[in-house]
Amino acid sequence: MIQKIPIVEKILSANDRLAEMNRQKIEEAGVFSLNLMASPGAGKTSLIEQTLKCLSGEFRVAVIDGDIATSIDADRASAAGATAIQINTGGECHLDAVMLQNALQQLDLTQFDLLIVENVGNLVCPANFPLGTHKSVLIASIPEGDDKPYKYPGMYRGVDALVINKIDLLPYIPFKMDFFRTGVEILNPGVVTFPVSCQTQEGLDEWIAWIKTNVTAKK
Amino acid sequence: MIQKIPIVEKILSANDRLAEMNRQKIEEAGVFSLNLMASPGAGKTSLIEQTLKCLSGEFRVAVIDGDIATSIDADRASAAGATAIQINTGGECHLDAVMLQNALQQLDLTQFDLLIVENVGNLVCPANFPLGTHKSVLIASIPEGDDKPYKYPGMYRGVDALVINKIDLLPYIPFKMDFFRTGVEILNPGVVTFPVSCQTQEGLDEWIAWIKTNVTAKK
Repeated sequence: MIQKIPIVEKILSANDRLAEMNRQKIEEAGVFSLNLMASPGAGKTSLIEQTLKCLSGEFRVAVIDGDIATSIDADRASAAGATAIQINTGGECHLDAVMLQNALQQLDLTQFDLLIVENVGNLVCPANFPLGTHKSVLIASIPEGDDKPYKYPGMYRGVDALVINKIDLLPYIPFKMDFFRTGVEILNPGVVTFPVSCQTQEGLDEWIAWIKTNVTAKK
Repeated sequence: MIQKIPIVEKILSANDRLAEMNRQKIEEAGVFSLNLMASPGAGKTSLIEQTLKCLSGEFRVAVIDGDIATSIDADRASAAGATAIQINTGGECHLDAVMLQNALQQLDLTQFDLLIVENVGNLVCPANFPLGTHKSVLIASIPEGDDKPYKYPGMYRGVDALVINKIDLLPYIPFKMDFFRTGVEILNPGVVTFPVSCQTQEGLDEWIAWIKTNVTAKK
Protein backbone atom coordinates (compact mmCIF):
# COMPACT_ATOMS: atom_id res chain seq x y z
CA MET A 1 0.00 0.00 0.00
CA ILE A 2 1.26 3.43 -0.91
CA GLN A 3 0.34 6.35 1.28
CA LYS A 4 0.31 9.69 -0.48
CA ILE A 5 1.50 12.67 1.50
CA PRO A 6 -0.27 15.89 0.54
CA ILE A 7 2.85 18.05 0.34
CA VAL A 8 1.32 21.23 -1.02
CA GLU A 9 -1.31 21.24 1.69
CA LYS A 10 1.34 20.80 4.37
CA ILE A 11 3.43 23.71 3.06
CA LEU A 12 0.39 25.96 2.93
CA SER A 13 -0.66 25.01 6.41
CA ALA A 14 2.86 25.76 7.74
CA ASN A 15 2.40 29.29 6.39
CA ASP A 16 -1.10 29.43 7.86
CA ARG A 17 0.14 28.28 11.27
CA LEU A 18 2.82 30.98 11.34
CA ALA A 19 0.19 33.46 10.18
CA GLU A 20 -1.90 32.52 13.22
CA MET A 21 1.12 33.15 15.46
CA ASN A 22 1.61 36.55 13.82
CA ARG A 23 -2.07 37.34 14.34
CA GLN A 24 -1.88 36.43 18.02
CA LYS A 25 1.16 38.65 18.55
CA ILE A 26 -0.47 41.60 16.77
CA GLU A 27 -3.75 41.01 18.60
CA GLU A 28 -2.08 40.95 22.04
CA ALA A 29 -0.45 44.31 21.30
CA GLY A 30 -3.87 45.85 20.52
CA VAL A 31 -2.77 46.88 17.05
CA PHE A 32 -5.00 46.89 13.95
CA SER A 33 -3.18 45.44 10.96
CA LEU A 34 -3.60 45.53 7.18
CA ASN A 35 -2.10 43.49 4.34
CA LEU A 36 -2.06 45.85 1.35
CA MET A 37 -1.88 44.11 -2.01
CA ALA A 38 -1.95 45.28 -5.65
CA SER A 39 -0.32 45.14 -9.06
CA PRO A 40 2.97 46.97 -9.47
CA GLY A 41 2.29 50.68 -9.58
CA ALA A 42 -1.37 50.62 -8.51
CA GLY A 43 -0.52 53.02 -5.69
CA LYS A 44 0.21 51.04 -2.52
CA THR A 45 2.95 53.37 -1.37
CA SER A 46 1.02 56.48 -2.39
CA LEU A 47 -2.01 55.31 -0.40
CA ILE A 48 0.24 54.65 2.60
CA GLU A 49 1.71 58.14 2.30
CA GLN A 50 -1.75 59.71 2.18
CA THR A 51 -2.95 57.55 5.06
CA LEU A 52 0.04 58.55 7.20
CA LYS A 53 -0.60 62.21 6.41
CA CYS A 54 -4.23 61.93 7.48
CA LEU A 55 -3.50 59.97 10.68
CA SER A 56 -0.47 62.03 11.73
CA GLY A 57 -0.56 62.95 15.45
CA GLU A 58 -3.58 60.72 16.06
CA PHE A 59 -2.23 57.19 15.61
CA ARG A 60 1.25 55.69 15.76
CA VAL A 61 1.81 53.75 12.53
CA ALA A 62 4.34 51.08 11.60
CA VAL A 63 4.86 50.09 7.98
CA ILE A 64 6.48 46.85 6.81
CA ASP A 65 7.39 47.05 3.12
CA GLY A 66 7.92 44.02 0.94
CA ASP A 67 9.85 44.40 -2.29
CA ILE A 68 12.01 42.34 -4.59
CA ALA A 69 14.76 44.95 -4.32
CA THR A 70 15.49 48.50 -3.05
CA SER A 71 14.15 50.37 -0.01
CA ILE A 72 12.30 52.99 -2.08
CA ASP A 73 8.93 52.22 -0.47
CA ALA A 74 10.18 52.05 3.12
CA ASP A 75 12.07 55.31 2.55
CA ARG A 76 8.82 56.96 1.38
CA ALA A 77 6.87 55.59 4.35
CA SER A 78 9.59 56.72 6.72
CA ALA A 79 9.68 60.18 5.17
CA ALA A 80 5.90 60.35 5.64
CA GLY A 81 6.28 59.78 9.37
CA ALA A 82 6.01 56.02 9.93
CA THR A 83 8.40 53.60 11.56
CA ALA A 84 9.28 51.60 8.46
CA ILE A 85 10.91 48.23 7.96
CA GLN A 86 11.93 46.99 4.53
CA ILE A 87 11.82 43.32 3.62
CA ASN A 88 13.73 42.53 0.43
CA THR A 89 12.41 39.20 -0.72
CA GLY A 90 15.40 38.57 -2.98
CA GLY A 91 13.26 37.56 -5.93
CA GLU A 92 10.24 36.07 -4.14
CA CYS A 93 7.07 37.39 -5.69
CA HIS A 94 5.09 37.69 -2.43
CA LEU A 95 5.49 38.08 1.30
CA ASP A 96 4.80 35.07 3.49
CA ALA A 97 4.13 34.56 7.18
CA VAL A 98 7.79 33.74 7.90
CA MET A 99 8.98 37.03 6.43
CA LEU A 100 6.37 38.92 8.47
CA GLN A 101 7.34 37.02 11.64
CA ASN A 102 10.98 38.06 11.13
CA ALA A 103 10.01 41.67 10.53
CA LEU A 104 7.72 41.74 13.60
CA GLN A 105 10.69 40.74 15.76
CA GLN A 106 12.23 44.09 14.93
CA LEU A 107 9.20 46.05 16.19
CA ASP A 108 7.87 46.74 19.69
CA LEU A 109 4.26 46.40 18.58
CA THR A 110 2.91 47.86 21.84
CA GLN A 111 4.25 51.24 20.66
CA PHE A 112 1.85 51.32 17.69
CA ASP A 113 -1.86 51.61 16.90
CA LEU A 114 -1.78 50.59 13.25
CA LEU A 115 0.44 48.21 11.29
CA ILE A 116 0.38 48.39 7.49
CA VAL A 117 2.08 45.60 5.57
CA GLU A 118 2.78 46.54 1.96
CA ASN A 119 3.05 43.35 -0.06
CA VAL A 120 5.10 42.81 -3.22
CA GLY A 121 3.44 44.26 -6.34
CA ASN A 122 1.68 41.21 -7.78
CA LEU A 123 -1.96 40.41 -8.56
CA VAL A 124 -1.56 36.63 -8.27
CA CYS A 125 0.77 35.11 -5.70
CA PRO A 126 0.18 37.17 -2.51
CA ALA A 127 -3.42 35.88 -2.41
CA ASN A 128 -2.15 32.41 -1.53
CA PHE A 129 -0.09 33.42 1.50
CA PRO A 130 -2.01 34.79 4.49
CA LEU A 131 0.27 36.80 6.77
CA GLY A 132 -1.83 36.98 9.91
CA THR A 133 -3.04 40.56 9.52
CA HIS A 134 -6.61 41.47 10.49
CA LYS A 135 -7.72 42.66 7.09
CA SER A 136 -6.46 42.25 3.56
CA VAL A 137 -6.96 45.18 1.22
CA LEU A 138 -6.63 45.18 -2.55
CA ILE A 139 -5.89 48.34 -4.49
CA ALA A 140 -7.24 48.32 -8.03
CA SER A 141 -6.17 51.10 -10.34
CA ILE A 142 -8.15 52.73 -13.13
CA PRO A 143 -5.34 52.51 -15.74
CA GLU A 144 -5.12 48.73 -15.18
CA GLY A 145 -8.46 48.36 -16.92
CA ASP A 146 -11.93 47.23 -15.99
CA ASP A 147 -11.42 43.50 -16.70
CA LYS A 148 -9.04 42.75 -13.83
CA PRO A 149 -11.57 41.10 -11.45
CA TYR A 150 -12.41 38.61 -14.20
CA LYS A 151 -8.78 37.85 -15.00
CA TYR A 152 -7.37 37.75 -11.45
CA PRO A 153 -10.27 36.23 -9.48
CA GLY A 154 -8.15 34.75 -6.69
CA MET A 155 -7.05 38.13 -5.49
CA TYR A 156 -10.45 39.81 -5.77
CA ARG A 157 -12.20 36.91 -4.06
CA GLY A 158 -10.16 36.92 -0.87
CA VAL A 159 -9.96 40.53 0.24
CA ASP A 160 -11.83 42.40 2.98
CA ALA A 161 -11.76 45.81 1.31
CA LEU A 162 -11.14 47.21 -2.15
CA VAL A 163 -9.61 50.60 -2.92
CA ILE A 164 -10.10 51.82 -6.51
CA ASN A 165 -7.22 54.24 -6.99
CA LYS A 166 -6.43 56.89 -9.66
CA ILE A 167 -10.05 57.87 -10.27
CA ASP A 168 -8.67 61.26 -11.39
CA LEU A 169 -7.61 59.45 -14.60
CA LEU A 170 -11.17 58.30 -15.45
CA PRO A 171 -11.68 61.07 -18.05
CA TYR A 172 -8.63 59.90 -20.03
CA ILE A 173 -9.08 56.12 -19.98
CA PRO A 174 -11.74 53.76 -21.32
CA PHE A 175 -12.90 52.13 -18.06
CA LYS A 176 -16.45 50.86 -17.61
CA MET A 177 -17.09 51.13 -13.88
CA ASP A 178 -20.29 49.05 -14.07
CA PHE A 179 -18.46 46.18 -15.78
CA PHE A 180 -15.66 46.36 -13.19
CA ARG A 181 -18.06 46.44 -10.23
CA THR A 182 -20.12 43.54 -11.62
CA GLY A 183 -16.95 41.44 -11.70
CA VAL A 184 -16.11 42.39 -8.13
CA GLU A 185 -19.65 41.67 -6.94
CA ILE A 186 -19.62 38.16 -8.46
CA LEU A 187 -16.39 37.28 -6.66
CA ASN A 188 -16.76 39.17 -3.42
CA PRO A 189 -20.39 40.23 -2.83
CA GLY A 190 -20.78 43.39 -0.78
CA VAL A 191 -17.06 44.00 -0.26
CA VAL A 192 -16.48 47.48 1.12
CA THR A 193 -15.10 49.68 -1.68
CA PHE A 194 -13.33 53.04 -1.66
CA PRO A 195 -12.91 54.90 -4.98
CA VAL A 196 -10.04 57.35 -4.35
CA SER A 197 -7.35 59.45 -5.94
CA CYS A 198 -4.07 59.75 -4.09
CA GLN A 199 -3.22 62.66 -6.43
CA THR A 200 -6.31 64.80 -5.74
CA GLN A 201 -7.21 63.26 -2.33
CA GLU A 202 -10.76 62.62 -3.56
CA GLY A 203 -12.49 59.85 -1.61
CA LEU A 204 -9.77 59.46 1.01
CA ASP A 205 -12.05 60.59 3.88
CA GLU A 206 -14.11 57.38 3.69
CA TRP A 207 -10.99 55.22 3.59
CA ILE A 208 -9.52 57.02 6.60
CA ALA A 209 -12.82 56.72 8.49
CA TRP A 210 -12.78 52.95 7.88
CA ILE A 211 -9.22 52.70 9.22
CA LYS A 212 -10.07 54.79 12.28
CA THR A 213 -13.09 52.65 13.12
CA ASN A 214 -10.99 49.50 12.89
CA VAL A 215 -8.11 50.90 14.94
CA THR A 216 -10.45 52.17 17.65
CA ALA A 217 -12.17 48.77 17.85
CA LYS A 218 -8.81 47.18 18.78
CA LYS A 219 -8.17 49.51 21.74
CA MET B 1 28.94 10.97 2.60
CA ILE B 2 25.81 12.87 1.71
CA GLN B 3 25.36 14.02 -1.84
CA LYS B 4 23.18 17.06 -2.25
CA ILE B 5 20.93 17.18 -5.29
CA PRO B 6 20.38 20.69 -6.60
CA ILE B 7 16.63 20.39 -7.06
CA VAL B 8 15.85 23.97 -8.01
CA GLU B 9 18.49 23.94 -10.72
CA LYS B 10 17.14 20.68 -12.10
CA ILE B 11 13.57 22.02 -12.29
CA LEU B 12 14.73 25.16 -14.04
CA SER B 13 16.81 23.24 -16.51
CA ALA B 14 13.84 20.98 -17.34
CA ASN B 15 11.96 24.15 -18.29
CA ASP B 16 14.96 25.39 -20.23
CA ARG B 17 15.28 22.10 -22.10
CA LEU B 18 11.64 22.21 -23.15
CA ALA B 19 12.11 25.85 -24.10
CA GLU B 20 14.92 24.76 -26.43
CA MET B 21 12.58 22.22 -28.02
CA ASN B 22 9.94 24.91 -28.48
CA ARG B 23 12.55 27.17 -30.05
CA GLN B 24 13.63 24.49 -32.47
CA LYS B 25 10.04 23.82 -33.54
CA ILE B 26 9.34 27.53 -34.07
CA GLU B 27 12.65 28.00 -35.87
CA GLU B 28 12.01 25.12 -38.26
CA ALA B 29 8.67 26.67 -39.24
CA GLY B 30 10.39 29.95 -40.13
CA VAL B 31 8.23 31.89 -37.68
CA PHE B 32 9.41 34.87 -35.62
CA SER B 33 8.19 34.63 -32.02
CA LEU B 34 7.74 37.01 -29.11
CA ASN B 35 7.15 36.50 -25.39
CA LEU B 36 5.19 39.57 -24.29
CA MET B 37 5.38 40.28 -20.55
CA ALA B 38 4.07 43.05 -18.29
CA SER B 39 2.17 43.92 -15.12
CA PRO B 40 -1.59 43.39 -15.17
CA GLY B 41 -3.15 46.13 -17.25
CA ALA B 42 0.02 47.55 -18.80
CA GLY B 43 -1.48 46.98 -22.23
CA LYS B 44 -0.30 43.61 -23.57
CA THR B 45 -3.60 42.82 -25.28
CA SER B 46 -4.02 46.38 -26.55
CA LEU B 47 -0.54 46.28 -28.09
CA ILE B 48 -1.38 42.94 -29.71
CA GLU B 49 -4.62 44.42 -31.12
CA GLN B 50 -2.74 47.39 -32.59
CA THR B 51 0.00 45.15 -33.95
CA LEU B 52 -2.54 42.88 -35.65
CA LYS B 53 -4.25 45.91 -37.17
CA CYS B 54 -0.97 47.20 -38.61
CA LEU B 55 0.17 43.80 -39.94
CA SER B 56 -3.20 42.77 -41.35
CA GLY B 57 -2.92 41.32 -44.86
CA GLU B 58 0.87 41.35 -44.73
CA PHE B 59 1.69 38.67 -42.14
CA ARG B 60 -0.21 35.70 -40.73
CA VAL B 61 -0.20 36.00 -36.95
CA ALA B 62 -0.91 33.45 -34.22
CA VAL B 63 -1.46 34.57 -30.63
CA ILE B 64 -1.16 32.32 -27.58
CA ASP B 65 -2.71 33.97 -24.53
CA GLY B 66 -1.83 33.03 -20.98
CA ASP B 67 -4.24 33.95 -18.20
CA ILE B 68 -5.26 32.75 -14.77
CA ALA B 69 -8.88 32.64 -15.91
CA THR B 70 -11.22 33.70 -18.76
CA SER B 71 -10.60 33.92 -22.50
CA ILE B 72 -11.02 37.71 -22.66
CA ASP B 73 -7.57 38.26 -24.19
CA ALA B 74 -7.78 35.45 -26.75
CA ASP B 75 -11.24 36.70 -27.74
CA ARG B 76 -9.81 40.18 -28.34
CA ALA B 77 -6.87 38.79 -30.36
CA SER B 78 -9.24 36.64 -32.38
CA ALA B 79 -11.57 39.56 -33.04
CA ALA B 80 -8.54 41.53 -34.23
CA GLY B 81 -7.80 38.90 -36.86
CA ALA B 82 -5.37 36.44 -35.30
CA THR B 83 -5.61 32.71 -34.79
CA ALA B 84 -5.76 32.72 -31.00
CA ILE B 85 -5.26 30.00 -28.41
CA GLN B 86 -6.06 30.58 -24.75
CA ILE B 87 -4.06 28.90 -22.00
CA ASN B 88 -5.76 29.13 -18.62
CA THR B 89 -3.03 28.49 -16.08
CA GLY B 90 -5.51 27.64 -13.32
CA GLY B 91 -3.82 29.86 -10.79
CA GLU B 92 -0.20 29.68 -12.00
CA CYS B 93 1.30 33.15 -12.10
CA HIS B 94 3.34 32.65 -15.29
CA LEU B 95 3.53 30.59 -18.45
CA ASP B 96 6.21 27.94 -18.68
CA ALA B 97 7.75 25.96 -21.52
CA VAL B 98 5.42 22.98 -20.91
CA MET B 99 2.33 25.13 -21.34
CA LEU B 100 3.73 26.63 -24.52
CA GLN B 101 4.64 23.17 -25.84
CA ASN B 102 1.05 22.03 -25.30
CA ALA B 103 -0.33 25.11 -27.03
CA LEU B 104 2.05 24.73 -29.98
CA GLN B 105 0.68 21.24 -30.60
CA GLN B 106 -2.62 22.89 -31.49
CA LEU B 107 -1.06 25.07 -34.19
CA ASP B 108 0.31 24.33 -37.64
CA LEU B 109 3.18 26.78 -37.26
CA THR B 110 4.07 26.61 -40.97
CA GLN B 111 0.86 28.55 -41.62
CA PHE B 112 2.15 31.63 -39.76
CA ASP B 113 4.81 34.33 -40.02
CA LEU B 114 4.61 35.69 -36.47
CA LEU B 115 3.79 34.08 -33.14
CA ILE B 116 2.99 36.32 -30.19
CA VAL B 117 2.82 34.72 -26.74
CA GLU B 118 1.03 36.92 -24.21
CA ASN B 119 2.25 35.94 -20.75
CA VAL B 120 0.28 36.22 -17.49
CA GLY B 121 0.21 39.77 -16.08
CA ASN B 122 3.05 39.69 -13.59
CA LEU B 123 6.25 41.70 -13.22
CA VAL B 124 8.12 39.01 -11.28
CA CYS B 125 7.63 35.34 -12.06
CA PRO B 126 7.57 35.16 -15.90
CA ALA B 127 11.19 36.36 -15.96
CA ASN B 128 12.31 33.01 -14.50
CA PHE B 129 10.66 30.80 -17.12
CA PRO B 130 12.02 31.06 -20.66
CA LEU B 131 9.50 29.74 -23.17
CA GLY B 132 11.71 29.29 -26.22
CA THR B 133 10.56 32.38 -28.14
CA HIS B 134 13.09 34.39 -30.13
CA LYS B 135 12.66 37.65 -28.26
CA SER B 136 11.18 38.64 -24.93
CA VAL B 137 9.47 42.00 -24.76
CA LEU B 138 8.48 43.91 -21.64
CA ILE B 139 5.71 46.50 -21.68
CA ALA B 140 6.11 49.19 -19.08
CA SER B 141 3.23 51.57 -18.53
CA ILE B 142 3.36 55.25 -17.59
CA PRO B 143 0.73 54.97 -14.79
CA GLU B 144 2.80 52.24 -13.11
CA GLY B 145 5.33 54.87 -12.13
CA ASP B 146 8.94 55.62 -12.94
CA ASP B 147 10.50 53.47 -10.22
CA LYS B 148 9.58 50.06 -11.64
CA PRO B 149 13.00 49.15 -13.15
CA TYR B 150 14.56 49.66 -9.72
CA LYS B 151 11.92 47.57 -7.95
CA TYR B 152 11.55 44.74 -10.47
CA PRO B 153 15.10 44.37 -11.77
CA GLY B 154 14.80 40.71 -12.80
CA MET B 155 12.22 41.50 -15.45
CA TYR B 156 13.94 44.60 -16.82
CA ARG B 157 17.32 42.87 -16.92
CA GLY B 158 16.32 39.96 -19.11
CA VAL B 159 14.31 41.41 -21.98
CA ASP B 160 15.29 42.09 -25.58
CA ALA B 161 12.98 45.05 -26.12
CA LEU B 162 11.01 47.48 -23.98
CA VAL B 163 7.72 49.10 -24.94
CA ILE B 164 6.73 52.12 -22.82
CA ASN B 165 2.96 52.25 -23.21
CA LYS B 166 0.30 54.87 -22.35
CA ILE B 167 2.53 57.86 -23.12
CA ASP B 168 -0.71 59.77 -23.82
CA LEU B 169 -1.16 59.86 -20.02
CA LEU B 170 2.17 61.64 -19.38
CA PRO B 171 0.49 65.07 -18.92
CA TYR B 172 -1.67 63.71 -16.08
CA ILE B 173 0.84 61.64 -14.11
CA PRO B 174 4.04 62.47 -12.24
CA PHE B 175 6.54 60.33 -14.18
CA LYS B 176 10.21 61.29 -14.54
CA MET B 177 11.28 59.73 -17.84
CA ASP B 178 14.98 60.40 -17.14
CA PHE B 179 14.80 58.56 -13.82
CA PHE B 180 12.97 55.65 -15.46
CA ARG B 181 15.42 55.41 -18.37
CA THR B 182 18.44 55.58 -16.04
CA GLY B 183 17.07 52.56 -14.18
CA VAL B 184 16.54 50.68 -17.43
CA GLU B 185 20.03 51.58 -18.69
CA ILE B 186 21.70 50.27 -15.52
CA LEU B 187 19.96 46.90 -15.85
CA ASN B 188 19.82 46.48 -19.59
CA PRO B 189 22.24 48.84 -21.36
CA GLY B 190 21.18 49.86 -24.84
CA VAL B 191 17.95 47.83 -24.86
CA VAL B 192 15.77 48.84 -27.82
CA THR B 193 12.88 50.96 -26.50
CA PHE B 194 9.55 51.98 -28.02
CA PRO B 195 7.53 54.74 -26.31
CA VAL B 196 3.98 54.26 -27.61
CA SER B 197 0.32 54.91 -26.96
CA CYS B 198 -2.13 52.20 -27.99
CA GLN B 199 -4.89 54.80 -27.55
CA THR B 200 -3.50 57.47 -29.90
CA GLN B 201 -1.24 55.15 -31.99
CA GLU B 202 1.72 57.44 -31.33
CA GLY B 203 5.06 55.65 -31.68
CA LEU B 204 3.60 52.43 -33.07
CA ASP B 205 5.36 52.80 -36.45
CA GLU B 206 8.79 52.12 -34.92
CA TRP B 207 7.47 49.08 -33.04
CA ILE B 208 5.88 47.67 -36.19
CA ALA B 209 9.05 48.32 -38.19
CA TRP B 210 11.04 46.32 -35.59
CA ILE B 211 8.59 43.43 -35.86
CA LYS B 212 8.68 43.48 -39.66
CA THR B 213 12.49 43.43 -39.72
CA ASN B 214 12.53 40.44 -37.39
CA VAL B 215 9.82 38.54 -39.26
CA THR B 216 11.52 39.14 -42.61
CA ALA B 217 14.87 37.91 -41.21
CA LYS B 218 13.26 34.53 -40.41
CA LYS B 219 12.01 33.96 -43.95
